[in-house]
Amino acid sequence: MTDPTGHEAVPTPPTSAAVARRAGVSRATVSYVFNGQAAGRVGAGAQARVRAAAEELGYVPHAAARSLRAGRGRIVLLAAPADTAPVFGPLFADFLAGFQSALHRLGYTGVLHGAPADAPLDAARAWAELRPAAVLTLHDPPLDASAVDLLKRAGTAAVLTPGPQAPPGAHALLLDQSEAGRRAGAHLLAAGRRRIGVVLPAEPGLAASADPRLAGVRAAAAGHPDAAVHPLDLALTEESAARLVARWPALGLDAVFAYNDAYAMLLMRALQDAGHAIGTGPGRIAVVGADDLLLARLLRPRLTSVRTEAIAPDRLAHLVDTLVRAPSTPPATHRLGTFRVVPRASG
Amino acid sequence: MTDPTGHEAVPTPPTSAAVARRAGVSRATVSYVFNGQAAGRVGAGAQARVRAAAEELGYVPHAAARSLRAGRGRIVLLAAPADTAPVFGPLFADFLAGFQSALHRLGYTGVLHGAPADAPLDAARAWAELRPAAVLTLHDPPLDASAVDLLKRAGTAAVLTPGPQAPPGAHALLLDQSEAGRRAGAHLLAAGRRRIGVVLPAEPGLAASADPRLAGVRAAAAGHPDAAVHPLDLALTEESAARLVARWPALGLDAVFAYNDAYAMLLMRALQDAGHAIGTGPGRIAVVGADDLLLARLLRPRLTSVRTEAIAPDRLAHLVDTLVRAPSTPPATHRLGTFRVVPRASG
Repeated sequence: MTDPTGHEAVPTPPTSAAVARRAGVSRATVSYVFNGQAAGRVGAGAQARVRAAAEELGYVPHAAARSLRAGRGRIVLLAAPADTAPVFGPLFADFLAGFQSALHRLGYTGVLHGAPADAPLDAARAWAELRPAAVLTLHDPPLDASAVDLLKRAGTAAVLTPGPQAPPGAHALLLDQSEAGRRAGAHLLAAGRRRIGVVLPAEPGLAASADPRLAGVRAAAAGHPDAAVHPLDLALTEESAARLVARWPALGLDAVFAYNDAYAMLLMRALQDAGHAIGTGPGRIAVVGADDLLLARLLRPRLTSVRTEAIAPDRLAHLVDTLVRAPSTPPATHRLGTFRVVPRASG
Repeated sequence: MTDPTGHEAVPTPPTSAAVARRAGVSRATVSYVFNGQAAGRVGAGAQARVRAAAEELGYVPHAAARSLRAGRGRIVLLAAPADTAPVFGPLFADFLAGFQSALHRLGYTGVLHGAPADAPLDAARAWAELRPAAVLTLHDPPLDASAVDLLKRAGTAAVLTPGPQAPPGAHALLLDQSEAGRRAGAHLLAAGRRRIGVVLPAEPGLAASADPRLAGVRAAAAGHPDAAVHPLDLALTEESAARLVARWPALGLDAVFAYNDAYAMLLMRALQDAGHAIGTGPGRIAVVGADDLLLARLLRPRLTSVRTEAIAPDRLAHLVDTLVRAPSTPPATHRLGTFRVVPRASG
């Protein structure tokens, strides 16, 4: 059997009304049992009958329907491009795993929505269809005021977007990428480096963190009139690295902050293959990455790296829970972490 | 104002009934417009009035409610641990990005559900609350028959679990990890290697692919009576690699298939630091990884790697769409890809 759009019909899932009939209780009682509100309202015998009837019928509560009844949803939507993990690195994947576990313990269903970033309003509409209790976006560009408004009208209690600025009504989540650049720049300047290259990845989606990192290095260099900062375009391919290294003698750089460890490893290998010495000593090129990957310690010299010290994922989950429970909390900026340099032999 | 669970009330989202009232049409008309069924049923003027009313009220259709009405959902749930990306490597993240884009083009909302793997029935219940049209799991252990049944009763048209075996009612998605082992083993045996180590990662969640990879190497070696295969425990830390390398002279291995490129890079570096020569020549230890990472080509010698040749992500999205449209399709096994060796200098 097919419906007008050419789909076969799927059996209708069992409803809470059917469970109530089978257990001989009201629908409200079924609702109390499945929303964790049975204590003091539903006796132990009735609770057992409801659970047995649900088991027999194969009933599970409907997250979205429940969210409408309860006035809040249980879905926390993390809106991030599906390729966020490689962009943000393994630290992000670890953080995400911890965040989803923490949400689970708080009774939420965390889902990652990775569809392509559309216009803000289209994206917000797609997310609103899931009736989330909270939306955290990592999208670039961030939402605008009308997108936040649409989510709020669809019952989303808390909208959190990347800082430093957030649209009206939304909270800002701040991981200040310029700090990563300031730390890397200050480290290299303190070691006497004055001609500092800063890698700007050619891969899409990284400008939102690469540009503030460059600005951070420039801010660090501002106090040193003899220092110069040079942006360097680099794609994550051996060919691109070889092209950049061919220009190196003309650039005359004595240090590079390479965006992250992957770009740093690629560039360091290409510099070495062209006969440049890498390291902290005189006449060597200092190379600094970011993310503090294990693999980056396998090259020689071992890579100096800017490490992200993120807040514990359960702190973020608790923040979301707090905002969902009190949706009128005035929007604020919430800091996600800081950065520090882990000095090793490369620079 | 707070509800009995201590939550502030959230404004109720605008309903399709409110849109219908404002546009002066029936609820069915609103439903036709938002379910892509307006052609031939709703005039252009009424369609425009419905969209204008929805815009003014901030109405968005409710994905889950719509799925109940339409007899199928629009959510495709990819149930994978949130730390799947690092486990499966960057190839998986790329695949996921392509898969979600392809679902989006087909009118689905792809969400990644990364909560911890519970007992199969608990996991299925959590997923069923989202009323997905299809569920693809990468969980280990896979679902059982009652979990599949629960999902089907909740209206899930297609359940796809990792193969080679699938529980009754579910389709099997097969990426035959033993083939990766067979290819690596055959490559090393053809090069004359006879004492082959196979890395079994100590990190959790990898046994489901590591064990069949080991079995594959053993299958390749079965035709060579003078060949021996040795499982090697290794954690992704420099200390663990140093401990394994300290035992190397006693093991007397001339080759190692190191599970993936990260373990291979770690082990190769530790072997080199201990004075072992790596490569294809006599007296050298052959090292083979998997995933064909860019970073693995940065070490010297460049790493030989087993590459996954996955099906195009839109082929998987189209398979899901086909199964959702025809939920009575008999369960089958669907191959996700094959493997091949990319020979380089390391082995």
